[in-house]
Amino acid sequence: MKEYHPSSNNKVKRGSKRAIYDIAQINEILDSTSLCYIAFTFEGLALVQPISFGRKDNVLYIHGSYQNRMTECILNADKVTISVTHLDALLLARSAFHHSVNYRSVIIFGKARELKSNEEKRVGLKALINHVVPNRWDECRPPNNNELKATRVIAIEIIEASAKISSSPLNDNKEDYELNYWAGKIPIVTKALHPVADGKLKQGVKMSKSALEYYRKNIDNI
Amino acid sequence: MKEYHPSSNNKVKRGSKRAIYDIAQINEILDSTSLCYIAFTFEGLALVQPISFGRKDNVLYIHGSYQNRMTECILNADKVTISVTHLDALLLARSAFHHSVNYRSVIIFGKARELKSNEEKRVGLKALINHVVPNRWDECRPPNNNELKATRVIAIEIIEASAKISSSPLNDNKEDYELNYWAGKIPIVTKALHPVADGKLKQGVKMSKSALEYYRKNIDNI
Repeated sequence: MKEYHPSSNNKVKRGSKRAIYDIAQINEILDSTSLCYIAFTFEGLALVQPISFGRKDNVLYIHGSYQNRMTECILNADKVTISVTHLDALLLARSAFHHSVNYRSVIIFGKARELKSNEEKRVGLKALINHVVPNRWDECRPPNNNELKATRVIAIEIIEASAKISSSPLNDNKEDYELNYWAGKIPIVTKALHPVADGKLKQGVKMSKSALEYYRKNIDNI
Repeated sequence: MKEYHPSSNNKVKRGSKRAIYDIAQINEILDSTSLCYIAFTFEGLALVQPISFGRKDNVLYIHGSYQNRMTECILNADKVTISVTHLDALLLARSAFHHSVNYRSVIIFGKARELKSNEEKRVGLKALINHVVPNRWDECRPPNNNELKATRVIAIEIIEASAKISSSPLNDNKEDYELNYWAGKIPIVTKALHPVADGKLKQGVKMSKSALEYYRKNIDNI
């Protein structure tokens, strides 16, 4: 499958010219961050919570404690909605009306399932950590049984998804181009700074390869 | 009022040591971005949508078209939930279990109200634009009556809010400090690049003061 099928949920209604259902493009947006926003219903109220996630194939992985309200709610829900968005630029037009932004945004409709066995939990946590910082999993102590017992790991299978990418230049009304107002864009970038070793680092331990690689990849992602 | 009152909605349950109800601190987090995530219910499903916002006093302003599903839903809801979050660092611990992040996060419970008169709409849109780029409103053409007619402007009064700031160094189990794994943090920053003039800029028009000021303020916000 190369595309998610547009359904009544994920079909882009506003600005449908910018709609994307292509899985590779959607994954690219998902993979360039590790923060997503999950919507859920609690006592009749729609709530939203930011959380770190990992993606592998068509599954997102999140984790939390067993006391976490959100994880409980999404496991009980038929469907979970998740947003991942990058703000890429502010577009300052000549008119207030045409002020806008460039962005890349994905909306996901998925089904949450709890991973119960230690084996499944390890797979999920590995996907999560390696999504945030590729290859980090092999550079740290894996979770022991007590830690796995204390961690709720949830897999959210992506059932439907769509993306919108807005990267066009700004647009003003024809007559406004004669006005003496400055117009242009301010690019916004998110980047990594150089990794900082923990104050209690054991003497002689070398910088993590995965951390350095992450930094190199994200220092100039402009 | 200096603090939002902790209620059953905004009271921080997990990690309550990090809970903040102080309005000045909450506003500082809100004011260092212009992207928020709004949760709403549509046909029984909790959805989340990213959107630009402005804050003035205890009110958030958003805008959209009259065909926008989200604006319709939040106007019909008793209460609206909004998340604003900054990811500040990845904490790479010696153990997979203690991998974590530094962040600043605000959750808001508010009441949405449509601004109907042109006068009210102008006030809301001015607050929105000046939140994104301070003082930009006076450097562009204000909306005319047709543009105001096409724009739905919504004020969301903040009724309850709380913040969590996690800025502590990473933590590992005592025995893990002897392991030969590297541990440390990777700081993550969001910053502005130099403003780029529109290709069709009228000759002789000088760089926007507000855009330049925004760039200077956000080039090194680390």
